[in-house]
Amino acid sequence: MSQTTTRVPQEQRTRAMRERLLEACVAVLVEKGWAGTSTTLVSQRAGVSRGAQLHHFPTKASLVVAAVEMLAERRHHLLEEVSQGLPQGAGRTRAVLNAFGDHFASDVFTAALELWVAARTDAELLQVVGPLEQRVGRETHQACVEMLGIDESVPGNRELVQATLDLVRGLGLANTISDDTARRRRILDRWADELDTVIARQEQG
Amino acid sequence: MSQTTTRVPQEQRTRAMRERLLEACVAVLVEKGWAGTSTTLVSQRAGVSRGAQLHHFPTKASLVVAAVEMLAERRHHLLEEVSQGLPQGAGRTRAVLNAFGDHFASDVFTAALELWVAARTDAELLQVVGPLEQRVGRETHQACVEMLGIDESVPGNRELVQATLDLVRGLGLANTISDDTARRRRILDRWADELDTVIARQEQG
Repeated sequence: MSQTTTRVPQEQRTRAMRERLLEACVAVLVEKGWAGTSTTLVSQRAGVSRGAQLHHFPTKASLVVAAVEMLAERRHHLLEEVSQGLPQGAGRTRAVLNAFGDHFASDVFTAALELWVAARTDAELLQVVGPLEQRVGRETHQACVEMLGIDESVPGNRELVQATLDLVRGLGLANTISDDTARRRRILDRWADELDTVIARQEQG
Repeated sequence: MSQTTTRVPQEQRTRAMRERLLEACVAVLVEKGWAGTSTTLVSQRAGVSRGAQLHHFPTKASLVVAAVEMLAERRHHLLEEVSQGLPQGAGRTRAVLNAFGDHFASDVFTAALELWVAARTDAELLQVVGPLEQRVGRETHQACVEMLGIDESVPGNRELVQATLDLVRGLGLANTISDDTARRRRILDRWADELDTVIARQEQG
């Protein structure tokens, strides 16, 4: 029994240290960009010894990829929470699009953008980032379909969902160097009205 | 007269050297990213002496900003050429959207993206990049309105044009780490059909 009670706190401590490292990594990445991020800086920010950091994440790439992965999971859970509170009927599409717009205007997008752009010119990093982006992309697409309640078996609807996600990605990029919130809301409200028109047209047959 | 004949070639030589530097800068930026770009590397690639390079562009930022500016102007002229050859009526919107899609999937977008992301964490660079992006953004928006032949005085149409440009920006980003051409075409064709439906609805009054 004493074995169990000592093992659990140790696992918890390890888990907490990992999370502190990943959170510090996101903060440094958002503040200083990929080039300005070093494992030394991250372990200092996290208050974790260099040895412990190297044990958990032996390279900068492994640390940053794990940090972006953690963020993506967290944001995904946030989207699921938003999904529970969505209004039915009028206003639902607008609410969904604004949730995705905010998602892509958050730190998760900024951190992922730094990793994405770095991977473009780093073949080794790309081997890890490519599959991660594909997986996150699939999950985000699925969440968007469910939240919009759109029928992807109707020809052309899949492309509309893809367009919606590429739109919020473009808006996310526009938001990185200046606060684009007001413009983003106007654009997404207009896009939501258009999607509602398409869906209504399909329901009328 | 001899003064004129010697001055003109000198101006031409200076102009040619400037262009060689800017073209080399774009090539290095696309190949190695912002962090991997140095003025030394660019002058070597351009075959221009270090002294001449420093005379024209004293800093890395001034060189990269001028390179992205040159590219943006060239791509803008290319869009104007495309504009001359557009079909009237059916298929026009698809042709316009695919022209913009290709524009944002080209080296000009990749180079601008590297500059944009670097400017996010570099206040000095941002002071130059911010106004450049605003100007290029306005010009691109105006070109898109004219090529689509859309009436921006109709409420909601301005937001549709903005959404179209944010969509192609998002598609440009998706294209940076893998060739996304086929998916991009399907999405833009679908969005073009939607825009055509909106425009037809407005014309019917």
